[in-house]
Amino acid sequence: MASAMSHAVSPLALPFPDLPPVAGATPRVARARYKTWDRCDLSFVTLDAGTSVAGVLTQSQCPSPEVEWCRKALVLGQARALVVNAGNSNAFTGNRGRAAVEAIAARAAAHLGCQPSDVFVASTGVIGVPLPIDKAEAGLDAAFTASPSDWRQIAEAIGTTDTYPKGAVTTAVVDGRTVTLVGVIKGSGMIAPDMATMLGFIFTDAAVEAPFLQAALNAANARTFSCITVDGDTSTSDTVLAFATGAAGNVALSDENSLGADAFRAALADLCHQLALLVVRDGEGASKLIEITVEGAESDRSAHRIAMSIANSPLVKTAIAGEDANWGRVVMAVGKAGEPAERDKLAIRFGATQVASGGLAVEGYDEAPVAAHLKGQEIEIGVDLGLGDGRATVWTCDLTHGYISINADYRS
Amino acid sequence: MASAMSHAVSPLALPFPDLPPVAGATPRVARARYKTWDRCDLSFVTLDAGTSVAGVLTQSQCPSPEVEWCRKALVLGQARALVVNAGNSNAFTGNRGRAAVEAIAARAAAHLGCQPSDVFVASTGVIGVPLPIDKAEAGLDAAFTASPSDWRQIAEAIGTTDTYPKGAVTTAVVDGRTVTLVGVIKGSGMIAPDMATMLGFIFTDAAVEAPFLQAALNAANARTFSCITVDGDTSTSDTVLAFATGAAGNVALSDENSLGADAFRAALADLCHQLALLVVRDGEGASKLIEITVEGAESDRSAHRIAMSIANSPLVKTAIAGEDANWGRVVMAVGKAGEPAERDKLAIRFGATQVASGGLAVEGYDEAPVAAHLKGQEIEIGVDLGLGDGRATVWTCDLTHGYISINADYRS
Repeated sequence: MASAMSHAVSPLALPFPDLPPVAGATPRVARARYKTWDRCDLSFVTLDAGTSVAGVLTQSQCPSPEVEWCRKALVLGQARALVVNAGNSNAFTGNRGRAAVEAIAARAAAHLGCQPSDVFVASTGVIGVPLPIDKAEAGLDAAFTASPSDWRQIAEAIGTTDTYPKGAVTTAVVDGRTVTLVGVIKGSGMIAPDMATMLGFIFTDAAVEAPFLQAALNAANARTFSCITVDGDTSTSDTVLAFATGAAGNVALSDENSLGADAFRAALADLCHQLALLVVRDGEGASKLIEITVEGAESDRSAHRIAMSIANSPLVKTAIAGEDANWGRVVMAVGKAGEPAERDKLAIRFGATQVASGGLAVEGYDEAPVAAHLKGQEIEIGVDLGLGDGRATVWTCDLTHGYISINADYRS
Repeated sequence: MASAMSHAVSPLALPFPDLPPVAGATPRVARARYKTWDRCDLSFVTLDAGTSVAGVLTQSQCPSPEVEWCRKALVLGQARALVVNAGNSNAFTGNRGRAAVEAIAARAAAHLGCQPSDVFVASTGVIGVPLPIDKAEAGLDAAFTASPSDWRQIAEAIGTTDTYPKGAVTTAVVDGRTVTLVGVIKGSGMIAPDMATMLGFIFTDAAVEAPFLQAALNAANARTFSCITVDGDTSTSDTVLAFATGAAGNVALSDENSLGADAFRAALADLCHQLALLVVRDGEGASKLIEITVEGAESDRSAHRIAMSIANSPLVKTAIAGEDANWGRVVMAVGKAGEPAERDKLAIRFGATQVASGGLAVEGYDEAPVAAHLKGQEIEIGVDLGLGDGRATVWTCDLTHGYISINADYRS
């Protein structure tokens, strides 16, 4: 990991979209040089007074001090700045790591004349090395006096092993006004967010009270970031924060009955969906995007667990890499999930073709469309358990030599 | 997988030991030709009347009909024969799969003049293709008239993607007589036994009543087969069966207070330990054997789950493959396990060298012995949670390009 974007661009990459400014949010980037690289690795987004914030954070038992800081600050529901460091996660660094986060928040607060608790901090990179406070402070000072950047520069500055910058945009009509939501995200390996993903940041000019923003983000997260996995390895630093500046001037959304609440929730969910899939598309070594839908489970939760068991199975992921319709490995992954399943009711499809049902192979199914589907870049696996109404869809990527090369060579 | 033992022999392979005959058990092999190969792929072990049996079987919700057959037959606790088919697991094949197992048991029973329920059947290989009954019956007939084989021929005949045959032997003194225990096992991928491992068979001339044999096997299994993982993918067919012929003539062991019960249990546990590690040493693509010990957990069960979270982490396994002392990935795997852990009490060692303690890196630890340890073939990772007395040791292998090559090319 000599520098960001150093690996070949993922074949599943999407072009960076045209992201408009968000009134009330001003992005800037700087070179803190957390590693021996010459790139922007510190992002500093200032937010107008009155900005509300919501967030979802890793459930890891070994979270970074940044995660702990955000968890505490989220209680107040207001934000004036976001600082993101790339190249060093500052995780598992004891008191020195905590001191670094406090110093960053204090410095940013001094620049802005706000409380340190209004400053949100996230860091990504190697675990176990304390973030150098002097570099962070110098970077922050440089960012504060820099010209504003665009969102693409932020998306690039927050990346580590990412092979392309990731952003998304959507709009919603709320209280007669069109509000904008933009998001940037980073992540490629160590991706199995428990409640969030590596690092994702969402900015909107809508006026949204913090509790409702949190509720909407929780709902979106449950069907997006919590439904993706690259390698089953949940990070110590997973963070998604959503900031609402209120500059659009709508009557603030306060609950689900507010005018435009449905449209805002739908737009936020759409944005989260776009961002989550951009991460899977940059899964380390990925050559195929895999969508796994489990239906007929005893509950949605059970369906989710079974879908994740399939999505994290190295044997399923290598079979897809090899374009092999080895549905027996899907049977194996259903069987090992520890959730209710009955072998003789189980049905499996690849793409639109049913390959197994009633506990055995479909006699004489047409292998040609299955083979054609597996040669594509976007693979669909469907499982019907035939037990109930539980349902879930998750996304992952295949497991290739690329993953091994990237991770057996990454020197800490 | 054109033929057994077709991949390069694992660098971690051990030589096949000198296994003595076991009085009362007669092994034979034959060519059923379940695949287009010219090798023995059917094993037939006949057992003297009075042989007791115990077994542990996969907890998969999608087990093979062989597993279901054995589960039922184990209730009676007696055995006259074992039939093992290699090249076809017969799993997920509906009524035709069940019919194949019944036909095999009936044919063997007719040869021996016993009940079909005295015949134990296990199969390994591709999932989803019904085992051809005609080939099984012809193979069984051929085996019945063949000369007895040795245990090495059985170990070879039960293999599939295994790169070397696996067997172990030990003895115990019971009731003044030296009894012999031999075991053969196969397995290389799809290894994360929930209660057993791929296919393992243990034979002893000791006289042991079935309930005590089962209790001793359960205890040994909990610390051996249930503590290994290659890829976290639990098979549909995992089976370990232990047969005690009684030919040694000791007073039958009936419970833990029987004379020699402790010695027998210890010997059985030792044999299971040897067999389990032989499987990890043949993990697909393995270049290093990794022993992970977790101490200081809230319970043994919690320690086991955390150890397995580390053992199944692709990022930990690739780091070891790359000989990288990336202990941050161990922190990550502890944190994601969903078990009680406190970051700031956590300590980690590689080999004998403490690299992290109290929630951060050990200041200025000597990297030279760590680097030397990681260059070896046998790697030790130690984690101390500092919470309680819970403890577990598990074994896995590293994740290399070999795993991808083997599994992305395996065509069903």
